[in-house]
Amino acid sequence: MNDASDIKKRDFLKEPVEHIDITSFDSTPIVDAMRNMSFSAREVAGAADVLDLMLNDPDCTIILCIAGSTSAAGCMQVYADMVRCNMADVVVASGATIVDMDFFEALGFRHYRGTASVDDRLLRSLYIDRIYDTYIDEEQLQVCDNTIKLIADSLEPKAYSSRQFIREMGRFLTTAAKKKDSLVQLAYENDVPVFCPAFSDSSAGFGLVKHQYERPDRHVAIDCVRDFRELTEIKMKAETTGLFMIGGGVPKNFAQDTVVCAELLGRPVDMHKYAVQITVADVRDGACSGSTLKEATSWGKVDSGHQQMVYAEATTVLPLIASYIYHKGDWKDRPRRRWNAIFK
Amino acid sequence: MNDASDIKKRDFLKEPVEHIDITSFDSTPIVDAMRNMSFSAREVAGAADVLDLMLNDPDCTIILCIAGSTSAAGCMQVYADMVRCNMADVVVASGATIVDMDFFEALGFRHYRGTASVDDRLLRSLYIDRIYDTYIDEEQLQVCDNTIKLIADSLEPKAYSSRQFIREMGRFLTTAAKKKDSLVQLAYENDVPVFCPAFSDSSAGFGLVKHQYERPDRHVAIDCVRDFRELTEIKMKAETTGLFMIGGGVPKNFAQDTVVCAELLGRPVDMHKYAVQITVADVRDGACSGSTLKEATSWGKVDSGHQQMVYAEATTVLPLIASYIYHKGDWKDRPRRRWNAIFK
Amino acid sequence: MNDASDIKKRDFLKEPVEHIDITSFDSTPIVDAMRNMSFSAREVAGAADVLDLMLNDPDCTIILCIAGSTSAAGCMQVYADMVRCNMADVVVASGATIVDMDFFEALGFRHYRGTASVDDRLLRSLYIDRIYDTYIDEEQLQVCDNTIKLIADSLEPKAYSSRQFIREMGRFLTTAAKKKDSLVQLAYENDVPVFCPAFSDSSAGFGLVKHQYERPDRHVAIDCVRDFRELTEIKMKAETTGLFMIGGGVPKNFAQDTVVCAELLGRPVDMHKYAVQITVADVRDGACSGSTLKEATSWGKVDSGHQQMVYAEATTVLPLIASYIYHKGDWKDRPRRRWNAIFK
Amino acid sequence: MNDASDIKKRDFLKEPVEHIDITSFDSTPIVDAMRNMSFSAREVAGAADVLDLMLNDPDCTIILCIAGSTSAAGCMQVYADMVRCNMADVVVASGATIVDMDFFEALGFRHYRGTASVDDRLLRSLYIDRIYDTYIDEEQLQVCDNTIKLIADSLEPKAYSSRQFIREMGRFLTTAAKKKDSLVQLAYENDVPVFCPAFSDSSAGFGLVKHQYERPDRHVAIDCVRDFRELTEIKMKAETTGLFMIGGGVPKNFAQDTVVCAELLGRPVDMHKYAVQITVADVRDGACSGSTLKEATSWGKVDSGHQQMVYAEATTVLPLIASYIYHKGDWKDRPRRRWNAIFK
Repeated sequence: MNDASDIKKRDFLKEPVEHIDITSFDSTPIVDAMRNMSFSAREVAGAADVLDLMLNDPDCTIILCIAGSTSAAGCMQVYADMVRCNMADVVVASGATIVDMDFFEALGFRHYRGTASVDDRLLRSLYIDRIYDTYIDEEQLQVCDNTIKLIADSLEPKAYSSRQFIREMGRFLTTAAKKKDSLVQLAYENDVPVFCPAFSDSSAGFGLVKHQYERPDRHVAIDCVRDFRELTEIKMKAETTGLFMIGGGVPKNFAQDTVVCAELLGRPVDMHKYAVQITVADVRDGACSGSTLKEATSWGKVDSGHQQMVYAEATTVLPLIASYIYHKGDWKDRPRRRWNAIFK
Repeated sequence: MNDASDIKKRDFLKEPVEHIDITSFDSTPIVDAMRNMSFSAREVAGAADVLDLMLNDPDCTIILCIAGSTSAAGCMQVYADMVRCNMADVVVASGATIVDMDFFEALGFRHYRGTASVDDRLLRSLYIDRIYDTYIDEEQLQVCDNTIKLIADSLEPKAYSSRQFIREMGRFLTTAAKKKDSLVQLAYENDVPVFCPAFSDSSAGFGLVKHQYERPDRHVAIDCVRDFRELTEIKMKAETTGLFMIGGGVPKNFAQDTVVCAELLGRPVDMHKYAVQITVADVRDGACSGSTLKEATSWGKVDSGHQQMVYAEATTVLPLIASYIYHKGDWKDRPRRRWNAIFK
Repeated sequence: MNDASDIKKRDFLKEPVEHIDITSFDSTPIVDAMRNMSFSAREVAGAADVLDLMLNDPDCTIILCIAGSTSAAGCMQVYADMVRCNMADVVVASGATIVDMDFFEALGFRHYRGTASVDDRLLRSLYIDRIYDTYIDEEQLQVCDNTIKLIADSLEPKAYSSRQFIREMGRFLTTAAKKKDSLVQLAYENDVPVFCPAFSDSSAGFGLVKHQYERPDRHVAIDCVRDFRELTEIKMKAETTGLFMIGGGVPKNFAQDTVVCAELLGRPVDMHKYAVQITVADVRDGACSGSTLKEATSWGKVDSGHQQMVYAEATTVLPLIASYIYHKGDWKDRPRRRWNAIFK
Repeated sequence: MNDASDIKKRDFLKEPVEHIDITSFDSTPIVDAMRNMSFSAREVAGAADVLDLMLNDPDCTIILCIAGSTSAAGCMQVYADMVRCNMADVVVASGATIVDMDFFEALGFRHYRGTASVDDRLLRSLYIDRIYDTYIDEEQLQVCDNTIKLIADSLEPKAYSSRQFIREMGRFLTTAAKKKDSLVQLAYENDVPVFCPAFSDSSAGFGLVKHQYERPDRHVAIDCVRDFRELTEIKMKAETTGLFMIGGGVPKNFAQDTVVCAELLGRPVDMHKYAVQITVADVRDGACSGSTLKEATSWGKVDSGHQQMVYAEATTVLPLIASYIYHKGDWKDRPRRRWNAIFK
């Protein structure tokens, strides 16, 4: 790239997304007020209350499911804080959330505030990728891809679950991270398993394909069946579980399905006892993303007792919910589940 | 209604909606954090900033447009506080917002928290009306209808604008209100004109039809042309204007159209200089509710400089925006516009 | 406007929207197939079936409610054909549908296919208005505004319902129309009443304000209470009614409310026995546009027996429904209701 | 299950979803009319036209991407016909589409028309699963799960791509299918590769976990990296490609990403030259499902020349588009790509 375009590129990439810090403000009075309102405001309070129930149920394992791009949009620290403060015992996420966003920023890179009203061909010519109103430097993403490849190159060639591989990414960050509080590293350090059921659908996919392409015969593989098997094992051992879901997609379905899978293995378990989902997806197209938690009851996946759908773009309401729970403080005495330890 | 159903009715109507009080918490740190995020969170901060620009422009008249049912859902006090604190110089709203919700509660009635998962035939049998997850006692609504009729009966029979009639409702409340801080009364006391371009599409419609039905020859009429004429006169005198819109519908279009109307009268005026809209309506069905503010620029209605769409169900974000503006305090030294005075 | 911009303007306004002709193709096999599918496809067939029930109920008066801009987008002829073929006995519509679109094209003007990805400031400079991906020549709209003014100038100065005024527009078209099959003219000729509950929120508003502005003391007024009274009278006389609604907004609420209004007048009537609504509005913001027909049952407005919501942008599915009904032919022996006649 | 519940279960499962047959009606006049309309109707015609361009480009490989549940809702035969008639050279789909729906019906099972307004706890007690308004017998789904397990048991224990495994499912159906025209079998017979990037997030996942659970040391694994590598190889060999996407989700992103992956492998290829997406997902939450094709241009994934988004629930518009293309007949002389053959 020549100097002129380099200058121009910097013009586009100058205002980084700053991740909201739920410890820096206390949303308690707002959430308390919303509890007595209607529409989505009341849903926000309801979601906080169901998450609080999960935290105060001594038997409950909390599964945090993340789809969509809210980590790029300023919620990355919320998720990391949830792991750090023991509000999430298992993470099931899209590959992009874990690799392109969280791991990417741990390597020292950033997302940038942009606009959706832009000439995408110009962005393309500058190697700038756009997520709605947010920009990423594609050259930095390629560094991320290649870092994944190097990690894969360093591992024994065999089939891994995404959880196992992400654990290696966390281990790598303990020595190499430029930003210390990434979810991937915190999860590694606290034995919180992280699953990406569609792991190759991300920057990791690029790095791993390159790894396999250079090693056609002996290489790392990511066995998505193993992912499902491991998550089902956690469900079978945990018994009581709650889902806290941002967006829908594969993570939602994957985590819900563990109940049915356990039954098929001859080890029937309780449905997920608690469930929250924050989404703007519509119910009426029949896709899982927008399907109601009530619908999941018909599948025997989610108990009908403690459910809360929140109809909102998550960046606007997740900070309120998480700050409320953080300041309520019921996470403080909660023992860590350390589910990663069962696989050692 | 017999005693059994009366007991049952009370079971449904026992948890009133409590309106959020933007003065009781300070959202400043949240909005400040959202300014550096992306997606709808950044839009929330952008909306606060555009409203703040309106407040600090000494020439700007602020037109608050309200569609939808957020007043029933806990935002009623927000709108009243905006009038009280001089953040809204003109109100254009759906009839339901002004009559069925604000005036209704001024008469001492309440909205109640309910659920959308309910047998609507049972509600019908109990004379309970439902707005998504919120209930209203229809017998109380009929008291509201009849109060409107009594006000109409007391007026000289001729054609009024909705603004003129709502002013009489405000005057009525100065002696009869059971709840003192209604928007209708505050607007009356502070000479803030309130327009309902589809006034009869509300509880007022019921009362006024009854009034006319009993007086087929000489009666009060509501001339919606006069509404448009008066609002256009305000626009022509105000010159610099900003729109703060919750939802879309008729209020949005009506307020925007004043620019075009002034031109047709041979008195061309500037487009609305500032515009904010909070909505979940989709742009792709071509309806006005979801049309972008950019689209309004093609019509010569809204200037392209200071626009902010916020994609959210308003109960979740309006309290953040309004509390931020309230605590920033730029409204304190702002002179009242008292646009009602030009019609006296 | 100078020559250069005139040339440019013609470049934007060269591909007129052609209105779909439901008589030119037969959607019967498609609708029949959709009846055995799921999701929105089945809703399409369900809507056709409920409309067919209305047509075959000898007591039923069909109220066609139109909000949104589908008339501009190619469905104008569908609505006109529904009036012509006796599938709609009453029309309740947004002012834009009736005046800016139907009456406008009757004057010989057209809508044009455009794109939503356009510089709206350029459009503004050319006096081109945009509705999503559709363009209108604002200079032609001003001709429409002024035609309304001339009609108003010619009438006795007093308060009219929008129905009365639109009837005069229909009468005007019988001699002046450049396009003969407009809904406004067909409704006039067949005594189908047309109501616009927010009449001044349209091109009619501009013309009528100009009319009043020149005649501050004696002028035509549009009494929206009278609209509601007249529609309620039709409901009370018709007794059995069905609603066929495109979009939501004021027309939906207005038509539904007649049941409650009749009760308030001491003349209780049955709820609307049949109801269809085609919309993409979401239920979760509590606004009327997206509220379910089931919710309307709680208000005593719509019977729970024969309801069908269709989740679709109407231009894609209305032609299928209307063509199916046209070719089924049950409208052929149906007597005209001629509700306009009761007001003569 | 006892007899009483068995009777009840049959009451719920008596009206099977019949899949629409695009050869049985000709949508040509409807699509031709929609081309001259606006809003989503025009998008429908645009989508048909872009698909037609793909079919008539002798170099173009067509990648059909399917997310959501339209196969359960009556579109299953549309996708099978697209493979049979050579309109789709590669399929990338959600696991549910391929296994729970298409393979499931090939085993002789059905989906049933139901309703979304139902007691999901009752369904649960009857082992009936619900997808919006559609029911499935969970006991039959378990037969499907176990069939997958048997296929896995019969294979050499090693890592497979989902494409390789789905090929074995197709081979299995050539002798075992109760319904002959499934997509899985037709794809097998015509060498059309089928990828499920999140394969274990489906009925296949259940069967494969059971397979691995019984064989902890030597078993079939599904390597999602290999999936991405194989699809990228096809992209590198095909060079000119078009995407025809129903819904978004992982299939959309996965297929788009092959362009970037090829570049990372040092083999830069052209962006996808053509792209169509049918979705109701909103753009404003930043998730991939609703992101515009224009946004994909910034990533270098999709060319900006021939793109068409269609805002619709696919069951309502896909039959129109596919029937139009079927009857236009440009697929008849098109040679099969047989991409599966490159992996033999």
